[in-house]
Amino acid sequence: MTVGLQDVLDAARRIEDCAHRTPVLRSTYFSERVGAELFFKCENFQKVGAFKFRGACNAVMSLSDAEAGRGVVTHSSGNHAQALALAARMRGIPADIVMPRTAPAVKQAAVRDYGATVHLCEPTLEAREAEAARVLSFTGGTLIHPYDDDRIIAGAGTAALELHEDVPGLDFVLVPVGGGGLLSGTAITTVGVAPSCKVVAGEPKGAGDAKRSFDSGVLQPSVNPNTIADGLLTSLSERTFAIIKKHVTDIVTVDDDAIREAMVGVWERMKIVIEPSAAVPLAVLLTGGLDVTGAKVGVILSGGNVGFPFA
Amino acid sequence: MTVGLQDVLDAARRIEDCAHRTPVLRSTYFSERVGAELFFKCENFQKVGAFKFRGACNAVMSLSDAEAGRGVVTHSSGNHAQALALAARMRGIPADIVMPRTAPAVKQAAVRDYGATVHLCEPTLEAREAEAARVLSFTGGTLIHPYDDDRIIAGAGTAALELHEDVPGLDFVLVPVGGGGLLSGTAITTVGVAPSCKVVAGEPKGAGDAKRSFDSGVLQPSVNPNTIADGLLTSLSERTFAIIKKHVTDIVTVDDDAIREAMVGVWERMKIVIEPSAAVPLAVLLTGGLDVTGAKVGVILSGGNVGFPFA
Repeated sequence: MTVGLQDVLDAARRIEDCAHRTPVLRSTYFSERVGAELFFKCENFQKVGAFKFRGACNAVMSLSDAEAGRGVVTHSSGNHAQALALAARMRGIPADIVMPRTAPAVKQAAVRDYGATVHLCEPTLEAREAEAARVLSFTGGTLIHPYDDDRIIAGAGTAALELHEDVPGLDFVLVPVGGGGLLSGTAITTVGVAPSCKVVAGEPKGAGDAKRSFDSGVLQPSVNPNTIADGLLTSLSERTFAIIKKHVTDIVTVDDDAIREAMVGVWERMKIVIEPSAAVPLAVLLTGGLDVTGAKVGVILSGGNVGFPFA
Repeated sequence: MTVGLQDVLDAARRIEDCAHRTPVLRSTYFSERVGAELFFKCENFQKVGAFKFRGACNAVMSLSDAEAGRGVVTHSSGNHAQALALAARMRGIPADIVMPRTAPAVKQAAVRDYGATVHLCEPTLEAREAEAARVLSFTGGTLIHPYDDDRIIAGAGTAALELHEDVPGLDFVLVPVGGGGLLSGTAITTVGVAPSCKVVAGEPKGAGDAKRSFDSGVLQPSVNPNTIADGLLTSLSERTFAIIKKHVTDIVTVDDDAIREAMVGVWERMKIVIEPSAAVPLAVLLTGGLDVTGAKVGVILSGGNVGFPFA
């Protein structure tokens, strides 16, 4: 285990002037439906609209001045790309973001708006890694992986740290799982500050590799994932899986209909916008996938970046 | 003038245990676009999802025990119906709500879920008033009009009261205008507690009767209104118009495309859900309909009840 509570505490101090301390909201409606006291940690209100900013910010602010001067590099088409671009701009250093040429123009534009340089490549993992290596070879910068990185995991853990501070005595914390950065950071934090609180992840059935890995004890790849929760398509890494195996109580899968219903339900009832990935833990609760009757349950709403082309 | 600041202060005390004190949110994005400091009073987070609960609650809590025992009656297919039903349930008294038979089943169900009795009628104003009179004739209850009522106006004014308390020194307060309850309540409050602050209303071009009334000085009916801002179809009353003429600086109209763009912009940028009517004042600012350069501007986001059939 290479990352622990102290790293989360250090990250919290490092990002406190850059990241929002997001609010914790209640919902009588959902609490009554689930039969538990629910507390929603609203990372949809975080900078760039997702918890990802915490890890990216921690990683960028951790660099020495010499490292920072050479800039940061990543490959991502999602929230991590914008998060790293903004964190780099805040520190005043270059960011080079490798994106598949199929990434929506609006996402490319968002990254450029934060002052980063976008490098397009073919939409395969191999092409993305090759292009990132090529960029690194001439910038000498630092690669910041979206989740397979201790600094990212520690940064992600700061959301749970704030949640436990604001709501002592939680019995459960629920988060979504994709690559496992948020889940492993939440687990490390929770075992450190609220050891009697169980950590449970929700995962889309159509991208159920973390559940298969957890149940079998052997890391499983994500093969042809297919879900509306487009932030959760990636596989665990050895690093995140090791933490999850040790500290997570369970992973529960839900189908896309349940995810969509939970997402729209949050829009309609709580009047806040969350993205499909963020709705996965609530979908677990609404479908009875986890018994939390009478418990105090924290739910991390991981992000709110959903396109609205239909209005 | 039959309603004044003291009525708003009384209303604030009367509803403080029932209504939410809603938060005021900032948005760097919209402030930069408009070139002003914007403060959004989030009545989308109010009970029943709209400012309407304030007036309904004030009206119900104002009744004597004898009056209250005979219940309350209104005709409405919108937020006022749910607001009155909930306020009556909180006081433990009957509520009879007259709704056009064309009202969506989901809205009828929402009113019944709050324990009210729904009376369906033909979808004309005459039929609604006749049915309300019939119900009143046998219940002996109190008619609570959606806006042509001093108690409703005073209750609506409490949103602006909280906004001025939380954000001293505003140069402008912007609200949408339909029947004028929120606008007249906001005007009375603002002239009382922040007299140097201007009150401006936004109105849909497709339901521009308040603008025509304001400009001509003569109350104009709303004829065949047509706008996505379905909370703003009604006409001013003599009561609200008298207050508006005296205390409001201007009414600015915007078209539905601007309203839609402002609404979706708030969803995407602020991660909160607002309804079309609530987006009208921001649409005024985004289209340059009012010069607020460098000013401190309060915007009341009046509600968040929008159906999401499309997700």
